[in-house]
Amino acid sequence: MELKVYLDEKRSIIEEALDRFFPRPEGPASEVIKAMRYSLFAGGKRLRPILCMSGASAVGGDERDVLPVACALELIHTYSLIHDDLPAMDDDDMRRGKPTCHKVFGEAVAVLAGDGLLTEAFYLMSRKDLSGHMSPHALLQVIPMIASAAGYQGMVGGQVVDIQSEGKGVEASLVEFIHTHKTGALITASVVSGALMGGGTQEQVAAIRTYGQKIGLAFQIADDILDIEGDTRTLGKGVGNDARKGKITYPSVLGLDKSKKIQRLMIKEAFKSLEAFDNRADPLRNIAIYIIERKK
Amino acid sequence: MELKVYLDEKRSIIEEALDRFFPRPEGPASEVIKAMRYSLFAGGKRLRPILCMSGASAVGGDERDVLPVACALELIHTYSLIHDDLPAMDDDDMRRGKPTCHKVFGEAVAVLAGDGLLTEAFYLMSRKDLSGHMSPHALLQVIPMIASAAGYQGMVGGQVVDIQSEGKGVEASLVEFIHTHKTGALITASVVSGALMGGGTQEQVAAIRTYGQKIGLAFQIADDILDIEGDTRTLGKGVGNDARKGKITYPSVLGLDKSKKIQRLMIKEAFKSLEAFDNRADPLRNIAIYIIERKK
Repeated sequence: MELKVYLDEKRSIIEEALDRFFPRPEGPASEVIKAMRYSLFAGGKRLRPILCMSGASAVGGDERDVLPVACALELIHTYSLIHDDLPAMDDDDMRRGKPTCHKVFGEAVAVLAGDGLLTEAFYLMSRKDLSGHMSPHALLQVIPMIASAAGYQGMVGGQVVDIQSEGKGVEASLVEFIHTHKTGALITASVVSGALMGGGTQEQVAAIRTYGQKIGLAFQIADDILDIEGDTRTLGKGVGNDARKGKITYPSVLGLDKSKKIQRLMIKEAFKSLEAFDNRADPLRNIAIYIIERKK
Repeated sequence: MELKVYLDEKRSIIEEALDRFFPRPEGPASEVIKAMRYSLFAGGKRLRPILCMSGASAVGGDERDVLPVACALELIHTYSLIHDDLPAMDDDDMRRGKPTCHKVFGEAVAVLAGDGLLTEAFYLMSRKDLSGHMSPHALLQVIPMIASAAGYQGMVGGQVVDIQSEGKGVEASLVEFIHTHKTGALITASVVSGALMGGGTQEQVAAIRTYGQKIGLAFQIADDILDIEGDTRTLGKGVGNDARKGKITYPSVLGLDKSKKIQRLMIKEAFKSLEAFDNRADPLRNIAIYIIERKK
């Protein structure tokens, strides 16, 4: 219950900041801003920004200071959802209980809304009026790290392998590649960027990177399991999509029981990586639990 | 002729750097890297990187120092071409004399190749091993400026208005918006980023910004005119596309003669903005002439 209160509180700080940082739908290009806002405020979990803030707190930093980067991570996540949902990609009609961006705004505007969100993320990270107080050194570590996690070495790389392997049967060697790249990389970058900007030592940042890698994998396995065991109404999207599309998932490769076992192991190892941290890392510990207990 | 030699020399420096900075198509995600490389090395003019290098030289900086950012600008330009060519957007089959990215790799991979190039651009700009010698202050001015020029405030904004206004008749007020945003913003950012990284004074940077705005508009008008008067084989793509699609262009709004007049005026003003510069700005002066004399 305490965790729910914590997450709700962080979420409302993030929602408020996203709204404040993000442009209003004005001017000739207002349609694409409307589309970006539609998907950005469709009610996500805001896990990546929360991880960024909690990563900063864990090393004694101020979570408010990292808000621009935290919000940028949500922009990147949202762009990836818009593009993943496109007819040429996963061809999904519903997301977070609402019609997907291209269903409402058409394909062309959806492609551009994704492009706009990705680009705006890097603007937001580096805007002087918002990040001018941050150490340029830390910012110039964080920007390439996030770019690398979002690009072909991370999310984009995972997505292309995911799409190409659809319906091609189970290749166990690829499922870990897909999961660690498609979801894990940006989740790890989220918590590590917080720790870097919060002024963490090299050891602390390394420990938090391990934490991120473990919960990142656990998170994606949880997603796979929810697609089998979840409730359509709670999830806000259909279930059974993975199986229908012949997606490579942990349950499809290793079975449900073994997947749950790996998931629990990941959470255990995530806890272990935080052993040297005091109670300021409790939010990170709680998020690890939340990740496998969540219902959406 | 001298200009041709200059441009060829710069182009080969850029081609070499792009190849050196850009990943090889290896690993499970090799297909998307192949697609990114396919479009990146399809033989562009490399105008944006050349402008970035020449902007640095004009203020006494070293053009080699700015190569990572110069190449990043070409990545952003290439991503925009891949996405613009998509069936949901301009639906073009040929680009630079070759089949477009989605024709060769399919739509899903083309979307991801564009995403990957845009993301990699920000990685390239901020990679410590390449830009570590640059002033963090200059880099943190350049990154948000380029992001802003590429996003909804610039290129993405121009593209969405371009698409939405197709076939809707001629609205004179919009043609300048489309041109200054879709093409002008990134061209301006290219030359200004060079001047900033080259250590230009505030006055120099302001003058070079004016130069960029003028040649940016002249460049896009030249593109419009080439679509009417150009040669398919030289251009590497079909002509008459704009008219067929009902695109808003300068010639369609103001006629060919008036468009050419505006173009010449822009070049004149671009020259004027460089009055206070010595012969180190000659490349910029020559590029201004090249822009309206080019045949592709």
